[in-house]
Amino acid sequence: MSILKAAIIGGGHIADQNHIPALKNLADQVEVTAVCSRDLQKARALADKHQIPFAYDNAEELFGSQNKPDLIINCTANYLHYPFTMQALENGCHVLCEKPPAITAAQAREMADFAKMKGKILAYNLQLRQTQEYTLLKKCLESGQLGEIYHIKADFVRRRGIPGWGNFTNKEIQGGGALMDLGVHILDLALSLLDYRMPDRIAANTYDFIGKAGGKGLMGNWNAESFEVEDACFAHLSFPDNVSIMLSTTFALNTKSEKNVNLQVFGTLAGAVLNPFSMYTEIAGELANIKFPHLQETDIQLANTTAFLDACRGESSNICNAEQGAILQEVVEKIYQSAQR
Amino acid sequence: MSILKAAIIGGGHIADQNHIPALKNLADQVEVTAVCSRDLQKARALADKHQIPFAYDNAEELFGSQNKPDLIINCTANYLHYPFTMQALENGCHVLCEKPPAITAAQAREMADFAKMKGKILAYNLQLRQTQEYTLLKKCLESGQLGEIYHIKADFVRRRGIPGWGNFTNKEIQGGGALMDLGVHILDLALSLLDYRMPDRIAANTYDFIGKAGGKGLMGNWNAESFEVEDACFAHLSFPDNVSIMLSTTFALNTKSEKNVNLQVFGTLAGAVLNPFSMYTEIAGELANIKFPHLQETDIQLANTTAFLDACRGESSNICNAEQGAILQEVVEKIYQSAQR
Amino acid sequence: MSILKAAIIGGGHIADQNHIPALKNLADQVEVTAVCSRDLQKARALADKHQIPFAYDNAEELFGSQNKPDLIINCTANYLHYPFTMQALENGCHVLCEKPPAITAAQAREMADFAKMKGKILAYNLQLRQTQEYTLLKKCLESGQLGEIYHIKADFVRRRGIPGWGNFTNKEIQGGGALMDLGVHILDLALSLLDYRMPDRIAANTYDFIGKAGGKGLMGNWNAESFEVEDACFAHLSFPDNVSIMLSTTFALNTKSEKNVNLQVFGTLAGAVLNPFSMYTEIAGELANIKFPHLQETDIQLANTTAFLDACRGESSNICNAEQGAILQEVVEKIYQSAQR
Amino acid sequence: MSILKAAIIGGGHIADQNHIPALKNLADQVEVTAVCSRDLQKARALADKHQIPFAYDNAEELFGSQNKPDLIINCTANYLHYPFTMQALENGCHVLCEKPPAITAAQAREMADFAKMKGKILAYNLQLRQTQEYTLLKKCLESGQLGEIYHIKADFVRRRGIPGWGNFTNKEIQGGGALMDLGVHILDLALSLLDYRMPDRIAANTYDFIGKAGGKGLMGNWNAESFEVEDACFAHLSFPDNVSIMLSTTFALNTKSEKNVNLQVFGTLAGAVLNPFSMYTEIAGELANIKFPHLQETDIQLANTTAFLDACRGESSNICNAEQGAILQEVVEKIYQSAQR
Amino acid sequence: MSILKAAIIGGGHIADQNHIPALKNLADQVEVTAVCSRDLQKARALADKHQIPFAYDNAEELFGSQNKPDLIINCTANYLHYPFTMQALENGCHVLCEKPPAITAAQAREMADFAKMKGKILAYNLQLRQTQEYTLLKKCLESGQLGEIYHIKADFVRRRGIPGWGNFTNKEIQGGGALMDLGVHILDLALSLLDYRMPDRIAANTYDFIGKAGGKGLMGNWNAESFEVEDACFAHLSFPDNVSIMLSTTFALNTKSEKNVNLQVFGTLAGAVLNPFSMYTEIAGELANIKFPHLQETDIQLANTTAFLDACRGESSNICNAEQGAILQEVVEKIYQSAQR
Amino acid sequence: MSILKAAIIGGGHIADQNHIPALKNLADQVEVTAVCSRDLQKARALADKHQIPFAYDNAEELFGSQNKPDLIINCTANYLHYPFTMQALENGCHVLCEKPPAITAAQAREMADFAKMKGKILAYNLQLRQTQEYTLLKKCLESGQLGEIYHIKADFVRRRGIPGWGNFTNKEIQGGGALMDLGVHILDLALSLLDYRMPDRIAANTYDFIGKAGGKGLMGNWNAESFEVEDACFAHLSFPDNVSIMLSTTFALNTKSEKNVNLQVFGTLAGAVLNPFSMYTEIAGELANIKFPHLQETDIQLANTTAFLDACRGESSNICNAEQGAILQEVVEKIYQSAQR
Repeated sequence: MSILKAAIIGGGHIADQNHIPALKNLADQVEVTAVCSRDLQKARALADKHQIPFAYDNAEELFGSQNKPDLIINCTANYLHYPFTMQALENGCHVLCEKPPAITAAQAREMADFAKMKGKILAYNLQLRQTQEYTLLKKCLESGQLGEIYHIKADFVRRRGIPGWGNFTNKEIQGGGALMDLGVHILDLALSLLDYRMPDRIAANTYDFIGKAGGKGLMGNWNAESFEVEDACFAHLSFPDNVSIMLSTTFALNTKSEKNVNLQVFGTLAGAVLNPFSMYTEIAGELANIKFPHLQETDIQLANTTAFLDACRGESSNICNAEQGAILQEVVEKIYQSAQR
Repeated sequence: MSILKAAIIGGGHIADQNHIPALKNLADQVEVTAVCSRDLQKARALADKHQIPFAYDNAEELFGSQNKPDLIINCTANYLHYPFTMQALENGCHVLCEKPPAITAAQAREMADFAKMKGKILAYNLQLRQTQEYTLLKKCLESGQLGEIYHIKADFVRRRGIPGWGNFTNKEIQGGGALMDLGVHILDLALSLLDYRMPDRIAANTYDFIGKAGGKGLMGNWNAESFEVEDACFAHLSFPDNVSIMLSTTFALNTKSEKNVNLQVFGTLAGAVLNPFSMYTEIAGELANIKFPHLQETDIQLANTTAFLDACRGESSNICNAEQGAILQEVVEKIYQSAQR
Repeated sequence: MSILKAAIIGGGHIADQNHIPALKNLADQVEVTAVCSRDLQKARALADKHQIPFAYDNAEELFGSQNKPDLIINCTANYLHYPFTMQALENGCHVLCEKPPAITAAQAREMADFAKMKGKILAYNLQLRQTQEYTLLKKCLESGQLGEIYHIKADFVRRRGIPGWGNFTNKEIQGGGALMDLGVHILDLALSLLDYRMPDRIAANTYDFIGKAGGKGLMGNWNAESFEVEDACFAHLSFPDNVSIMLSTTFALNTKSEKNVNLQVFGTLAGAVLNPFSMYTEIAGELANIKFPHLQETDIQLANTTAFLDACRGESSNICNAEQGAILQEVVEKIYQSAQR
Repeated sequence: MSILKAAIIGGGHIADQNHIPALKNLADQVEVTAVCSRDLQKARALADKHQIPFAYDNAEELFGSQNKPDLIINCTANYLHYPFTMQALENGCHVLCEKPPAITAAQAREMADFAKMKGKILAYNLQLRQTQEYTLLKKCLESGQLGEIYHIKADFVRRRGIPGWGNFTNKEIQGGGALMDLGVHILDLALSLLDYRMPDRIAANTYDFIGKAGGKGLMGNWNAESFEVEDACFAHLSFPDNVSIMLSTTFALNTKSEKNVNLQVFGTLAGAVLNPFSMYTEIAGELANIKFPHLQETDIQLANTTAFLDACRGESSNICNAEQGAILQEVVEKIYQSAQR
Repeated sequence: MSILKAAIIGGGHIADQNHIPALKNLADQVEVTAVCSRDLQKARALADKHQIPFAYDNAEELFGSQNKPDLIINCTANYLHYPFTMQALENGCHVLCEKPPAITAAQAREMADFAKMKGKILAYNLQLRQTQEYTLLKKCLESGQLGEIYHIKADFVRRRGIPGWGNFTNKEIQGGGALMDLGVHILDLALSLLDYRMPDRIAANTYDFIGKAGGKGLMGNWNAESFEVEDACFAHLSFPDNVSIMLSTTFALNTKSEKNVNLQVFGTLAGAVLNPFSMYTEIAGELANIKFPHLQETDIQLANTTAFLDACRGESSNICNAEQGAILQEVVEKIYQSAQR
Repeated sequence: MSILKAAIIGGGHIADQNHIPALKNLADQVEVTAVCSRDLQKARALADKHQIPFAYDNAEELFGSQNKPDLIINCTANYLHYPFTMQALENGCHVLCEKPPAITAAQAREMADFAKMKGKILAYNLQLRQTQEYTLLKKCLESGQLGEIYHIKADFVRRRGIPGWGNFTNKEIQGGGALMDLGVHILDLALSLLDYRMPDRIAANTYDFIGKAGGKGLMGNWNAESFEVEDACFAHLSFPDNVSIMLSTTFALNTKSEKNVNLQVFGTLAGAVLNPFSMYTEIAGELANIKFPHLQETDIQLANTTAFLDACRGESSNICNAEQGAILQEVVEKIYQSAQR
């Protein structure tokens, strides 16, 4: 297997903690050759820390170098997903882009079309797909144990989890709040169970009461005065063949759990809950509850990076691909539109 | 206090078990003088059992008798709520009608208008309003502890609770399934918290997979072949001032709990859960969870009948009144319309 | 369906509390016409209490009467199971006999052979077969979910449950202690899962330390000085095709649980535990634990009496029949022999 | 106290993780001078890692060296326990041998006899004897609180714990499966409570269904095709004075617990459970359950090595000695014989 | 055994629910011949309900009647304990008097002295002495398992248990609040463990904040305006031989438990908690916690009445006798004096 | 902010583990320049370990050096708190002294007066004041949610926590046992809630049964023969305005919990428990229990050292100051006096 050359664009926490360690773990398939960041010092420090040979403060330079990468990990801020991904595709690179795909549906659509035209892999880092629980859920669905899914409750809810760092409350940079940051994860899981069908009816409401009022923070203290995004989003998605999703995603909500990331999936033969994974069905004519007490935690970033490399090599892969990303972004946009009416 | 004369129309289980015992308990305010049922033998047996003097198989006879009642308890099947209520109002009686108000929104509207014209009390037996939990929720809301409510999750969900008796799966008689029978209760609680505002946007889906497939029943065994109504209904209600409700109501769903009847109320200052009642808020700058370990169960039918009698006497009452019933029925109808698109 | 005439022999607690109420509940199939007890006064009192027409103190009289019964419920002490059952069969009656079948294997064999010769139903009141849990276990076995069973742990263990009344500690009357009284129940369940195969190797030990020492009783206080039977029995049963059972049955043991009545069944595809019913298997490549949270308690005496009547009418029935009873008694005898070596 | 010289034979995981660290912790009593392994490179690496001066690939060389050891830790594969132990004894060394003592009863007997003849200590590393729980159990037995023990349930059961590494499923190398690897531990604890009496009657069954069928592994994935040993063993041991043991030991079983290592000990005055340690008895005429909430985990390897060194110095020691090992191996062999009939 | 004649003085709830049923249950020892109450109609109704032959509204009449009682159950209000008990003794009757013994220490002393002079049994209905837990505690103490007791925490604490009926908040009638009504029970248990030694140092505080402020009642709603007694009392009792008791007794306190009635007893060898009964000690050199999971609830009124009758017959009895009652009342008085300083 | 120079007197565990790390963490405010210990080698080793420039075995030398400190951390044994604190104040240093303030009330009073005269800060390291729970309790009290506090239960109780090291059982060095070592902490918290009012009545008992008898130790094994202090102390404190405290503090007690450090605070409007922090009150007319599930553990030594430095800089601080320390020591002395009577 030939070894691919990878470059990182965006030198923040997620590059340092998630992507570079995963790539380093896959040294038989990929070599990290460069880090590119607006801040050259930061790029160099990160490169040094991980023993990566080159550092740039400029994407042109990166793509123009002798060591031109085969693939790019796009770790930039949300509003930069589009320009850097387009530039990388233009330069013939595969791209693993952080979520959300982009700021607008139009961008994500253009990115998908351009990747297709260029014959390159564009994929998104929605790594919750790689948990043992979701893998098992997919297996149970594919083996017919759930029957047909007709309703899903999708939750990514935090009680007081407005991040006290970064740009999470800045609308221009992030494109939105809880939905853009958290909701896309759980929405991707739900849509993937439905083969990324497109809903034909969306009703949604968004709120920002707690974010603008301020209060106790459990993920650092946020600035209520500069809070510009939604702290809560509730949406009902309905599909042409009468399937429905109820989505709840919040940065802050006056609720019991500190954090609830879950799917409840209702099928004609069985229901399933993602975390902890369980099924509710009938066995031998009686109602049965099934638990799986021995599921093990997996390194989901490692698994998702592996899935991306599989895709780059033309193998089958369960990664969120460019086309799915475009649909996901369109759904997100329609949710915001419904809420803004 | 003068004693009112009450007559029962409809001689079924709910008259026998709920209404007549409650009225008998309030003998200082009301006297049950007659039972009226299509089946005279049944009417007489019920009257004898409860030492009620008169039995009829005919409403005209009842209203034409010397012992003309002051108020009627309408315990008939759903599709008879309208005609018997109208007849009772026409005859100058107050009416406590079983839920749902009627089969159509137009009927419920006409009933409300006619009651107003006649100057009589028309109310509905949505007795979950009388639990200590809901009473406390209302008090906390009114005293400002919740702030403004902006989102409610309303659930009346059964795992395998399609009743194996009566007409619960017959569309003509009942007007619908889980929503008509169970959903109206929890919807009434939610709308009452919002002062019975009218939602301006409703998106809903209904299903009948389990009902039509058959299977294990936990409330007797139902006939899958004659199952005509929805076994599950999921709806998103949105109000002009950006408040939203997510409603889930089912007769049957592949889920863990045998039965879940609950409200989760999210306000700007605190959230509340109805069962068991609890609040989630901030106290002294820290996140606080509040429980009320000493709430006592109350006889909610007795309390609701009392509330009706209060209304009849012109006193303030928290009963679901005719106007609220008309709005509730309209919401129900819009949910069905959205689901049938 | 013609109504069978039943007579009770033995006027003790089990006739009064179990058998007569069950028969009375099945009045469309059976009529209790007589009670027979050594003590005529006792017989008459029991008959009067349950509105049974005739009372006798003598079986000959019973069988010689005009109202000759079609079936007999043998509720006598263990050592009388044989003579009264033989007499009843001789007189052309079906017999439902209390457990254990008899005092010796030879008696039980003779009873089975005689019933066969007479063309009458002889069955034993091992009513634990009728629990929802055991019924479900059988269904899961028959549908292949357990694979082949190769090992069973069978427990009927009490901490301090030596009955403080009756003849439970008298060897001549009872034939034995915990094994005769409790062990036969759980052994019957285990053997029935194995289609009543005969074990070819039995190793067992019995004890009477606590019974003879005396101490705190949880089922009344027993007389340690007249204690003659085993208070504990542990046995290993091995079958020709390499299946095994480990049996533990005690009246008294220094253990945690007040009472443990259970089967643990180990099959090639899944294991099952009887109480509360659960299964341990693999689903979709992962280890799965299955619970059945909605099993309902049933009236097992009513169900067993019904099963007996089914058998009398020539219908299929899961009751412990005469042939099974003979095998059960043989196994019991071999256990005692192994322990006495 | 003079310092003994110790050499390790067998350079695997158990030498590296258990024995060498324990010896190093006891530097005031013992000095590790050499490691001997078939693979010299492995021997040297291990020696270097632990700063041990000499490494050999040949036992003759070891025993012929100037630095002749006083004692040997035999960490070889099961089938090599016999030859290397005999060689060490021949060379005048004490031996701490890994469990099981040998492959056959005859070997273990010969080893014990030879050690006695040579006046050397031979002991086995059955270190579960050193837990605080077992120590306390012994103390309670010795102080009379349990009375006389008459029955023991001994369990070392894993749900899916067939090791996915090493030679655990190879019959020639290991001598057997679950019984040889796990059962000997719990059997040693049980027999030690009975002063290593010899049972005079053994009935046993062994199975290999899951091992040969394959499936989900919780300790790595095993190769079902080369699976040669028992995955489950159930045995009943009976002693001349009417004491009995029920042994259950499995690598794989369709049961709830991932792992259950326990003794339940039933005495005339009290019963005890090993993990977590508890007693069931009578106090002041009432049934009492006793827990010991403050037992602390101990380093059982360190304690067992210490016990071995105590024995080498002629002090009293609770280690499994050569004579006990011979009895243990004989019991194991009889269990296999009973199962193979 | 000759049958004693008993008369009831005071026709309230405690006579009806506790004393008369207990006496009726002991018909082989005692016969209830009369009820005496200020209100003749009430006396007669109570007598009729329990089939008691005579009813009086006047104690003189009772004592002057032909059916002069052998013993009196004094069920009057606290301030009447003294006069009616004295009158009964004067008339040669034994007396079982409700608690507290009297209103003042002087009264209780006089009652004890007069009973002694008259040679009659005077005892108090402190029936918590008869629980299985307290009986077991006494047994453990007497058998030496606790060693010497040196400290006791005695609690009879309610969160919001000011009775909403009767005279519980009236100082003149009751003599006090929580201490008089509840504290005497737990104090009697504590003092009885110490052989009713007299403390030589008492420090105490009493409060009435909640009682006077009003609020939610869990035992009916009390009248805050007429609240005259203490709702909380905390006292430290110290004995000449350096034993101490900490007493907490409340009608109302802002605490978690609705009700806590308990002793914690600290001895030199073990500690014990009364409810649920448990001991904390050392066994075999390790710290041990002992539970008694099979204690059964007993009918403590029946047992206390039996104990009284035993005393009347001159048998040994664990009832609170006249002398103990005088000491108890003196301790109560000293607690109030300390609090009033 | 100018950087203060700190010196440590007393080179033991608490200096090494608590004070020096805290000071090092506050390097922007304070610099540790010297360690002083009787044992110069120990002083130097500690200084080296923490990169502190100077080490002395003599306080005169320390105070006479060029690098004269601005503040002293007095980490000496209890009986040396007084002399070294006085010397430090004499030399113009602020002092943070370990608890208890001194051995006698007179010493503590003199220390406070001298500090005042010298215009220096003297404070005590009672760092439990800095937990999030106590901080929240104070906030709730100050905001009026508790109303007026009238009773406090203060517990610092260990089951078998007599330290097996140090001088904890030596009366001359320590001044006392559990009260001096543990009780002062919880007493300080309680008194601080009451604004350090002085109680006017104290009743107390102390014991040494377990300490002198010996037994199982959970904090090492103590020497029973040289045990000179109290292992248990129970006291009742009463204040002029009818507030009371019940204090329990033990090194050893036959109780369930290994360790219980807690306050139960009873106010007119609400009660509070410190660990885990909870409140018991009325909300909306119902009894409410409030929990705070998201309190985070804080570094209480760091917080207390910060509070001391705040005080040194003349800022407001919640540290236990010299005046409070004098009152605390007086209360301790009165408790001992009451117990010794």
